Amino acid sequence: MAADLIRICDPDDVRIAEFRNIRERDLTGREHRFIAEGTVVLRMLAAAHLRREAFAVEKILLLESRVAGLSEELSAFPADVPVYVASAEVLDAIAGFHLHRGVLALGRRLSCSEPAQLLETLPERSLVVAACGISNHDNIGAIFRNAAAFGADAVLLDETCCDPLYRKALRVSVGAVLKVPYARGGTIADNLSALVEAGFHVWALSPSGSTDVRHIPAAPRVALATGTEGAGLPQDVLARYDTARIAQAPGLDSLNAATATAVALYQIAAGQGRI
Amino acid sequence: MAADLIRICDPDDVRIAEFRNIRERDLTGREHRFIAEGTVVLRMLAAAHLRREAFAVEKILLLESRVAGLSEELSAFPADVPVYVASAEVLDAIAGFHLHRGVLALGRRLSCSEPAQLLETLPERSLVVAACGISNHDNIGAIFRNAAAFGADAVLLDETCCDPLYRKALRVSVGAVLKVPYARGGTIADNLSALVEAGFHVWALSPSGSTDVRHIPAAPRVALATGTEGAGLPQDVLARYDTARIAQAPGLDSLNAATATAVALYQIAAGQGRI
Repeated sequence: MAADLIRICDPDDVRIAEFRNIRERDLTGREHRFIAEGTVVLRMLAAAHLRREAFAVEKILLLESRVAGLSEELSAFPADVPVYVASAEVLDAIAGFHLHRGVLALGRRLSCSEPAQLLETLPERSLVVAACGISNHDNIGAIFRNAAAFGADAVLLDETCCDPLYRKALRVSVGAVLKVPYARGGTIADNLSALVEAGFHVWALSPSGSTDVRHIPAAPRVALATGTEGAGLPQDVLARYDTARIAQAPGLDSLNAATATAVALYQIAAGQGRI
Repeated sequence: MAADLIRICDPDDVRIAEFRNIRERDLTGREHRFIAEGTVVLRMLAAAHLRREAFAVEKILLLESRVAGLSEELSAFPADVPVYVASAEVLDAIAGFHLHRGVLALGRRLSCSEPAQLLETLPERSLVVAACGISNHDNIGAIFRNAAAFGADAVLLDETCCDPLYRKALRVSVGAVLKVPYARGGTIADNLSALVEAGFHVWALSPSGSTDVRHIPAAPRVALATGTEGAGLPQDVLARYDTARIAQAPGLDSLNAATATAVALYQIAAGQGRI
């Protein structure tokens, strides 16, 4: 049962202070709090909230004209999650820009496991993405979206990856960041060692990889290491692990990092019989 | 041989007027002119300029500190293409925002063929993307990038797709818009009819497609029809043509439109033996 709606008329109302100037706020530390935008992400957040494992919702702020169309989503939240509504004028003044979606929620990450801890929770047959240096919010969001689409069990982000709970990353992921278990920390070398320790066959994705991704042999536990478009994975990673490439037309720039990850995951997931 | 550098000290200098406030300018009609940004796109534009088929460069504007590193790219342009340089302060005042890349060019589209005309130029064995309703600049740019990566011969955009020469689309495409031949116009139904007329086997991509893209039979001429994530392809297109789907984990949102196009193109290109 959802909460009653609380009308906000003053952009400075302290009850919705966390939504003030969210564009700037993204750039500062947020103590495990994050802003979720849009109906689909709100739905994913509701599901995560009910699982109570990793994420909770603290409050919701809606454009008044959106309320009627969101009754199903709102009913998924327990009554102790306050739902605020505002006019377009007040909402834009709160957010600091024109918010055409009109759906915001403040979420909180309940637990942050280390990469090694996360690996202990994975099933016998697993597919994991180990990302390195993905600092672009679109790419990190897209990697989560692709990981969800092809049924990956977890995403390990090294310490140089950006926060996938950043507003835009979460939006681009269409909420997949709230669904696919992940951990962020350590170096890519540390994370890949932990994967090997846990019985994973690591494949490092690179335009110059030795094995065509179509020929990656099926294995119960596979980890795909993926880096940025520019620098790619570090040389020591490419030297230490089996490398894989995506067949492409000759003489062209490589694929976008998230798209390359999608194609490789698609192929590995097919090999494992998960899609 | 490249032109001598011409220093610009006044943001209002008429010689670089086309670069004024380029963010706003994007939104207006541009008479076949477009702004190219960044070194890689500049390189692609130089190559297109030399081919003289579809695109020409009218002028180049660079941040002074970038000139030394771009000598190779600049030498690819003929001497009648003026190269302007400016300080960071002047350049930002010209562009209307902080331009950290510091590399701009004004390009012009020389010819705009109709979809049917473009089809006449294609080789016996061809792979074509026919896009419908792609109005997001990131997606249109990414579709071109993916088309180039998997060796597609052409992209047909229906009249509801956005202009791929829009600044951001061109940037996201990493210049592939200047490389992969394309035409924009007509309805998706018109364009697919023209493809069938030209001997193409049309496959309409949809999450509910009948045939797994892995099972698309090889054919000399294949066209992949692709729509938006939201509405997808129109029902009459799905009813009229063979439909194909990308295998995914159950119960999840579909892939991003450009990523889905990438995976399907990858699979079709592999089937045609082009990658």
